[in-house]
Amino acid sequence: MSARIAAVTITPLAFADPPLLNADGVHERHVLRGLVELHVETADGRTVTGLGECTGHAWQLDYLELLAPQLVGLSVFDRGALQRIVTEELSGSGDGDGGWRRWSDRPDSTDSRGPAPMPAKEFDQQRAFSVLEVALLDAQGRVLGVPMVDLLGGAVRERVPFSAYLFYKWGEHPALDGEPGLADDWGPALDPAGIVEQARRMVDRYGFGSLKLKGGVFEPGAEIEAIAALRRAFPELPLRLDPNAAWSVPTAIDAAHRLEGMLEYLEDPAPGIEGMAAVARETSLPLATNMVVVSAGHIAPAVAAGAISVILGDHHYWGGMRGSLDLSAVARALDWNMSMHSNSHLGVSLAAMTAVVAAMPSLGHACDTHYPWNEADDIVRDPTRFENGTLAVDDRPGLGVELDRTAVDRLHQTYLELHREHRNDGAYRARVEPGFDTGLPRW
Amino acid sequence: MSARIAAVTITPLAFADPPLLNADGVHERHVLRGLVELHVETADGRTVTGLGECTGHAWQLDYLELLAPQLVGLSVFDRGALQRIVTEELSGSGDGDGGWRRWSDRPDSTDSRGPAPMPAKEFDQQRAFSVLEVALLDAQGRVLGVPMVDLLGGAVRERVPFSAYLFYKWGEHPALDGEPGLADDWGPALDPAGIVEQARRMVDRYGFGSLKLKGGVFEPGAEIEAIAALRRAFPELPLRLDPNAAWSVPTAIDAAHRLEGMLEYLEDPAPGIEGMAAVARETSLPLATNMVVVSAGHIAPAVAAGAISVILGDHHYWGGMRGSLDLSAVARALDWNMSMHSNSHLGVSLAAMTAVVAAMPSLGHACDTHYPWNEADDIVRDPTRFENGTLAVDDRPGLGVELDRTAVDRLHQTYLELHREHRNDGAYRARVEPGFDTGLPRW
Repeated sequence: MSARIAAVTITPLAFADPPLLNADGVHERHVLRGLVELHVETADGRTVTGLGECTGHAWQLDYLELLAPQLVGLSVFDRGALQRIVTEELSGSGDGDGGWRRWSDRPDSTDSRGPAPMPAKEFDQQRAFSVLEVALLDAQGRVLGVPMVDLLGGAVRERVPFSAYLFYKWGEHPALDGEPGLADDWGPALDPAGIVEQARRMVDRYGFGSLKLKGGVFEPGAEIEAIAALRRAFPELPLRLDPNAAWSVPTAIDAAHRLEGMLEYLEDPAPGIEGMAAVARETSLPLATNMVVVSAGHIAPAVAAGAISVILGDHHYWGGMRGSLDLSAVARALDWNMSMHSNSHLGVSLAAMTAVVAAMPSLGHACDTHYPWNEADDIVRDPTRFENGTLAVDDRPGLGVELDRTAVDRLHQTYLELHREHRNDGAYRARVEPGFDTGLPRW
Repeated sequence: MSARIAAVTITPLAFADPPLLNADGVHERHVLRGLVELHVETADGRTVTGLGECTGHAWQLDYLELLAPQLVGLSVFDRGALQRIVTEELSGSGDGDGGWRRWSDRPDSTDSRGPAPMPAKEFDQQRAFSVLEVALLDAQGRVLGVPMVDLLGGAVRERVPFSAYLFYKWGEHPALDGEPGLADDWGPALDPAGIVEQARRMVDRYGFGSLKLKGGVFEPGAEIEAIAALRRAFPELPLRLDPNAAWSVPTAIDAAHRLEGMLEYLEDPAPGIEGMAAVARETSLPLATNMVVVSAGHIAPAVAAGAISVILGDHHYWGGMRGSLDLSAVARALDWNMSMHSNSHLGVSLAAMTAVVAAMPSLGHACDTHYPWNEADDIVRDPTRFENGTLAVDDRPGLGVELDRTAVDRLHQTYLELHREHRNDGAYRARVEPGFDTGLPRW
């Protein structure tokens, strides 16, 4: 069955986000996101569209725009050629179109939200391959009439478990630049009682069977109190805390000792592989990461240092869906437990994560997802619903999801009106709290 | 596309083999082999057959016979369920049929030819899953009309490189038990000149671009002389030597020093992970293995010990085709180079190895194959031909190969007439050379 890419569409999107606090600052009013559509024609005259969803920062979208024309004619079965095209482009001459020149100017430092151990450009490249791989495999599944989980090796579970993703948050986006304040349905959560209330609502609405708190917002003692409050309120549920490397090594060691017995794992307490290893040597708590091991090249150093025992996968940057299963194989071999990382996302990414995990033999912990914070703006029709904190594995061809064109157009219009190119949680918070210092570690 | 297994056929085969010498003894007159056929029916009334080829020792075949009835009704897309069936059977009650009882009596010690670090039963189980996985994926490809390499993620190379597999050998199988001696076309190879002549013929006929010598037959100095002779005769070709753990650690260290600069890698010079690590610490030669790392559980210990830098995959025991790609992902993460192991085999196994490697991003060395020693007895029609030591990637659905029924029937008849259940290279050699001691390490 010959099936080739006839055209590629990259659509920038923006959707509403509550003021969720993290170590970098606070979520802005809108998340920037990208929708990739691979328009495919089969030898027997059918057309299908493969979907992928990715981060929407300008350099990422520019790089995808640069790659798009080179994908025309590619067989949907030729993941190897996709890898070659993306890799070769990074070392390209730069004499292409405007997108290429803009991406060529990408600073080689890491994003404020990016991973420490690799240049931002390489990470953009890894993410570009990943979203295109998802869309390519989606197209494969739709061409063949095979659900994604079967393309990935077959289901090893019937439902995929997710955890509640709890955030300290403001009650509203503050009034700024003449824009009025914007409250949301969830209300504020700035102390242990607020976090417990948020958790209660998450569990009641979605049935989540485990709870993750995004930390790095208040001094460690306050966040440990919040974990203790969750422990008392939900004695049965596994808990995790993720301060996003906001703690120094000594602070992290002290906090880890106080958290022992309360967490299933502590995520990214301190910066860097060596920092994580220094904490790991002093605590019995499993340490997890999505910050210091984000690419194949980081695995051997992390093993050598003994830095982690849980790795958070993410099909957005671990080489797509097959790349995420490769990571799972590595984790199994290294005796690492596996969990899944999330950024703010919509239903295409949710479908991809669900399919990957459905085919993943070694998931040790429920997956992270921001979906409850953003589901009102979803771009897929009839999204799957959480039951007992789990999602059913989709049995429709490919990722299964169909786009809601009206929603896509609305989110694209929002993007155009925003005139924003990059996420900057720190700058946003500093505008509201002058003097806010984005430097990490903070404690 | 629903497609389910309607019936399973396990056909024991035996085919002619030359008297190839190795550390255990000498190849017997016949190789025992198994052919697995999964007969599949699709929802729209088509029938396809998925093929797999495996070792033919009696315990292995019995275990497959035990599993066969439980596979009926399985979806060809449900690799996860196949894994569960195989795993659950190992811990079964043993109240099944005769096959089960016979397999239950399988000694838990390792095979003489088996890997050191795991019980033979578990290795049988791993191999059973592997051959069934190959047949399952072959059926998937045939149902969907998709070549295997595409099911496995797409081709990353157009042709797959193989190495010449050189053996010390007798000129003929000796006369025994009233059977006359049996010479073969290749003639004897018992010294450096004989090995160089064999290599010349392999290179002339097949175009191989690298050379592997099976060692562990003569004292190390003699084998090092053979390598030096190959080095002189083929100055351009990468060389490898595989003494199959016939050397003690001190002998291996001494030999490694003498071989430095002549080999691309030295394979299994000494027994066990610790033995390999002790050699690795003393030599700059890359050490490879297919003996001490043969299952996921051996990877972490091998990493911790620093035992190897090249891992030989094999779809016959690394979890089939996808399992072999999982191993490749692990190897990439660990900075291990990848090569592929071979046992005596026919064209179904050759097609499977070729498809796996076609989709494997990180092959560092040409694949081993015994195929030239056994190709006269192949069971597939129009087998692919070596050009410049490489095979083309098959673009027909599934593995592509079609069975030659006459050949299958002939090899099955040979099996029935043999009345042999197990391979025993050591016993065979001891019958010819009374007093031959199979104990290893030998030097």
